Amino acid sequence: MLEALFNPKRVAVIGASTKELHIGNRVIRNLIDFGFKGEIYPINPKADEIWGIPALKSILDAPDGIDVVHMVIPAKFVPQAVEDCGTKGVKHIIINSGGFSEIGPEGEAIEMDFLERAEKYGIRIFGPNCQGIINSDPEIRAYCNFTFTKPEPGAISIVALSGGVAEVIHQGFAAMGVGTRIYASNGNACDVTIPEIIRYLGDDPGTQVLVTYVEGLRDPSAFLEACTEVAAKKPVLAMKAGRTREGAKAAASHTGGLAKEDIATDLIFKKAGVLSFSDEGELIQSAVAFASQPRARGNRVGIITNTGGPAVIATDILAGAGLELPPLSSQTEAFLKERLYPEASVANPVDVLATGTAEHYRTCLDAMMEDDAFDCVFVNFVTPFFVDTDSIAREIAEVNQQKRKPLVCNLMTDKGQWVDTVRILQDAGVPCYALPGEAARAMANLVRYHQITTRDKGDVAPVRDVDSQTARRIVDDAVANGSKILAADEVYRVLEAYGISVPDWRITDSVDGAIEAAEDIGYPVVLKADAPSVIHKSDMGGVSLNLMAADALRMAAEDMQTRISDADLGFFVQKYMPGGLETIMGAKAEDGLGHAVMFGLGGIYVEVLKDVVFELTPVTAAEATEMLTSIKGTTLLQGVRGQPGVDQEALIELIQRLSQLLEDLPVIQELDLNPVMAFEEGALVVDARILL
Amino acid sequence: MLEALFNPKRVAVIGASTKELHIGNRVIRNLIDFGFKGEIYPINPKADEIWGIPALKSILDAPDGIDVVHMVIPAKFVPQAVEDCGTKGVKHIIINSGGFSEIGPEGEAIEMDFLERAEKYGIRIFGPNCQGIINSDPEIRAYCNFTFTKPEPGAISIVALSGGVAEVIHQGFAAMGVGTRIYASNGNACDVTIPEIIRYLGDDPGTQVLVTYVEGLRDPSAFLEACTEVAAKKPVLAMKAGRTREGAKAAASHTGGLAKEDIATDLIFKKAGVLSFSDEGELIQSAVAFASQPRARGNRVGIITNTGGPAVIATDILAGAGLELPPLSSQTEAFLKERLYPEASVANPVDVLATGTAEHYRTCLDAMMEDDAFDCVFVNFVTPFFVDTDSIAREIAEVNQQKRKPLVCNLMTDKGQWVDTVRILQDAGVPCYALPGEAARAMANLVRYHQITTRDKGDVAPVRDVDSQTARRIVDDAVANGSKILAADEVYRVLEAYGISVPDWRITDSVDGAIEAAEDIGYPVVLKADAPSVIHKSDMGGVSLNLMAADALRMAAEDMQTRISDADLGFFVQKYMPGGLETIMGAKAEDGLGHAVMFGLGGIYVEVLKDVVFELTPVTAAEATEMLTSIKGTTLLQGVRGQPGVDQEALIELIQRLSQLLEDLPVIQELDLNPVMAFEEGALVVDARILL
Repeated sequence: MLEALFNPKRVAVIGASTKELHIGNRVIRNLIDFGFKGEIYPINPKADEIWGIPALKSILDAPDGIDVVHMVIPAKFVPQAVEDCGTKGVKHIIINSGGFSEIGPEGEAIEMDFLERAEKYGIRIFGPNCQGIINSDPEIRAYCNFTFTKPEPGAISIVALSGGVAEVIHQGFAAMGVGTRIYASNGNACDVTIPEIIRYLGDDPGTQVLVTYVEGLRDPSAFLEACTEVAAKKPVLAMKAGRTREGAKAAASHTGGLAKEDIATDLIFKKAGVLSFSDEGELIQSAVAFASQPRARGNRVGIITNTGGPAVIATDILAGAGLELPPLSSQTEAFLKERLYPEASVANPVDVLATGTAEHYRTCLDAMMEDDAFDCVFVNFVTPFFVDTDSIAREIAEVNQQKRKPLVCNLMTDKGQWVDTVRILQDAGVPCYALPGEAARAMANLVRYHQITTRDKGDVAPVRDVDSQTARRIVDDAVANGSKILAADEVYRVLEAYGISVPDWRITDSVDGAIEAAEDIGYPVVLKADAPSVIHKSDMGGVSLNLMAADALRMAAEDMQTRISDADLGFFVQKYMPGGLETIMGAKAEDGLGHAVMFGLGGIYVEVLKDVVFELTPVTAAEATEMLTSIKGTTLLQGVRGQPGVDQEALIELIQRLSQLLEDLPVIQELDLNPVMAFEEGALVVDARILL
Repeated sequence: MLEALFNPKRVAVIGASTKELHIGNRVIRNLIDFGFKGEIYPINPKADEIWGIPALKSILDAPDGIDVVHMVIPAKFVPQAVEDCGTKGVKHIIINSGGFSEIGPEGEAIEMDFLERAEKYGIRIFGPNCQGIINSDPEIRAYCNFTFTKPEPGAISIVALSGGVAEVIHQGFAAMGVGTRIYASNGNACDVTIPEIIRYLGDDPGTQVLVTYVEGLRDPSAFLEACTEVAAKKPVLAMKAGRTREGAKAAASHTGGLAKEDIATDLIFKKAGVLSFSDEGELIQSAVAFASQPRARGNRVGIITNTGGPAVIATDILAGAGLELPPLSSQTEAFLKERLYPEASVANPVDVLATGTAEHYRTCLDAMMEDDAFDCVFVNFVTPFFVDTDSIAREIAEVNQQKRKPLVCNLMTDKGQWVDTVRILQDAGVPCYALPGEAARAMANLVRYHQITTRDKGDVAPVRDVDSQTARRIVDDAVANGSKILAADEVYRVLEAYGISVPDWRITDSVDGAIEAAEDIGYPVVLKADAPSVIHKSDMGGVSLNLMAADALRMAAEDMQTRISDADLGFFVQKYMPGGLETIMGAKAEDGLGHAVMFGLGGIYVEVLKDVVFELTPVTAAEATEMLTSIKGTTLLQGVRGQPGVDQEALIELIQRLSQLLEDLPVIQELDLNPVMAFEEGALVVDARILL
């Protein structure tokens, strides 16, 4: 669908200008300078030619088959120009100009106007208020963009609404001598969307790595779907900014209110298998490694160095990121001891010494590439004047091109003095970094990707023993009655319909009824006030725990009647379950994305330490298990200080039942199971709340 | 003392070589290329000249007044050469050669040998197995070093044992167009030490910022002293590597066992007022900001940008680091609204738009420099082709040179195309970064330094009401008896001597005695087994809590007698104090540094969440207060969920009493107060252990 947009043969520029500082001039200059393989048609009723290309008076004068039209004209003229393009059979328009929805209602009206016209003709709009696209494919070389970094052909594609950040990322690749495949920054994105571009790049064989930057998501579910589809085929690296309250505010001010402080974006990245970043430098440096390196097949790294300290820094970062530095196998050790200098450190890291030769490097590289103890190889390479650094570089380059295992190189040099050494490595696609930490983090991300792609997320197993009809009827009735919150009995009936265990309970409207219920359930019991007027039960003295016998229950109930003078006051009587570990679960509807499900330890753990984790529905068994293991206090679930552990299987099952309940009843806005008491056997929801 | 080492007028090279790949050749070439202002004397009995300078047969043939001699000769010849230098009156020798203590006992013996001779003549040795020094002072220009980065004169000095990392840092400055003042990498550091160099640089007026890298500290207390002295005068930025177990192992392998996984280095940095880093890139980038910027006077930052997204990234980092982004004052807002484009976003960040002019930038810069709402200014500057970027750069440069408030600049450009723009900013000392995150972290560190330097650490208030003599006598007696662990009564008497509250206690050797003691103290009591054979009381059934009356106490005591068949078994009876919040304190002797004192929440908090903090003795009141507020669960101390808070003053006092106890009794190796029960009023040590 977007094929002609990214691979245009004929590009026209409405608003082509003779003034060099005008975007309508620069776009043409950029197309020429970048060696565009197609034809360029400047449209300007007053000019004869622009950069030597004859100008046309109107798009209507252009030949047929225009793939892309740039518009660099005031907003008010855009609707008519779109109309003209429609008449001409143009299929894609990049609107570089601003003055549309980003400036307020007036501009928004113009945007709506031209969009309607475009739709009529089947024209796709890229932008407005955008930079445009670049395709560095040597057969295309389309620089339909007014920015300034001129990429070499490459394997990484960049997509972002924000031209500023897309350009920063782009500059980062260029500064590292690494090419870009396709670059797309679509500004207001009124028609062609980010998910659509991501999907296109997923199908583009030239795009081997996809990098994206977001501040907020317009259509989270479309983004999730596109990323899930593409991340299954190639690495998708993404960064979300606007993470702090202040950052979200800054983002809102420049995008017109799109961004918000959220947790959903991270959950989407995780669900989709996208590699998430919070540092743009690390994003850039990691993408460079992905662009040239084979996939990691494990987390065991071997280090080769010719200087000590930088290997220590790299080791810290690698180990800190969970990579292993196994010892050399005894064969490899013996083999290297024979071939390196006697003072060389033959371990992991292997230190060939500053005087280490090309042969020493090659021997180590081959040894680690062949040694099954290692999944990837980290090279530290400082360029002392007294060794033949070009030869060392050639050996690294050659080994890199064999693509046996992923390799990164921390190249510590003066790029001005060691021009040739640098070039040998870069030309061979060796990912080179100026700092050990940068190289190590890039390598750690290759391994993280391996872990993401090989992690068995499991399928969602629909829980069969549920009575979804009953639950749906309760919820539907409440919605029909205009309730925003379910009554206690409704909550417990919904939970029970999904096989979620709750302590035995009764509802009654009298003190005697409560006593009868307690006799029936068996003491001890909990008594809770039950009336629509009672929202925060605890605060109103509407909860009484651990009532051991009838007189205690009666006193408590009469006391509640005194405190809460509500004629409709009823009582909720429930079996009191002492002991157990207090956990909490919850859920919140996320626009178009199902629900974010929360799990954590209860009480002070959640209040003081915010020790909770989230996952988007539907939650698989593997994901629920991960939730349990990824809280900080996870060892409490396993039992500490001689305490027995709790029934983790029961919690995992409960999370899945909860997930299915939420999937089946999307009208639920918020749900709290707080606390969920986990015992050595089983787990019970002791209090719950459902908002619609 | 090291004046002539760093400012040599006459440099001789013993082992000067005609071979270009030899270090004895390169040192001379480097001196010449760098424009050394003094005289060079190559020493080589077989050569006539080296790089056009006549060679001398022996150091004895050199003129008097040689400040620095390089030795680039095999280790075995070094002792005699040192002897010759002594005869000649040489004062400093840089031994570049290796083959000494780093290779084992044989080399160590040679090191001892030449050290003795050097001492005899009052010669100071730099190295061996080292790179050497560089002084870029235009009056000196001494490149007494075989590495390759040639610095411009600058304000930052670098000192590190590890030549590899020193050089990486050095390259980082050069790549950012920033100069270096003095560079010193002393390898084995057998004589001239890192603390000594740090002190020298502290006194060097040309050094405005000091950067150091360590893997382990040979003499922690000398390092602490030197850093404390220097950090009071100028910013000291330090990085410690070998933080992970694997990293420490790698460090040990290349330094010969110097490094270990420790917490003390961080505590030293903190105590000394050193700015600590764990990322070498951030260290480099921050040093660059410190080198040219005035001191921050607060944490309120104003952002000026001409592109949205990168300002969002910067905002996230700044806010995440605790900086504030206040709104513009109403005057500034009104002022800017009149002067910027109508579509510009006049807030914080101010977005002047990509089309923003030099005048717009200048107006904003001046406004934020003058507006009292801001302490520092962050500039985002992308270089679109359609604005006069040189003029913008000139305005930024000019404002920067007024040094009103600290300023950093995220310069998003293609350095190849925008050469002039880059040069204008660099020449004016504007710290320029290629990424918003890098610039933001550098700025955050300027603010962190402000916080460190203005933080009132308080003085150590000696606690007066202590009976240090009694405590000392107990400990001395134990030492005299060869005890490694104090008996329970000794522990409690030591604590009581320092005014540390413990619940009332008695020691007795019989069951009846225990009952008598309990009657005396008042029930409930705790009973603990007391005998040298009882190390882990709880595990051996040697603790019984909350005994309410005589028969319970008797049963418990008799039960202990059965379990622990030790004829010497006595009983420790103590008042049982229910309630309170369980905290822990502890201490561990740190070689030559006093003790590291630990504080945390007890029980599962320490076991599961490792929620503890450390501080080196002596601990001031301010530091003790910081300890309480810097644990993750600090709000528990203040009270949560309707619980009253605990007596924080009592805990703060207890930490200080503990600190004084440790200072007075350095023979204590380990001390545990676990738990310390904190109540609404007061705090009591309920169990304690002291190892000598």
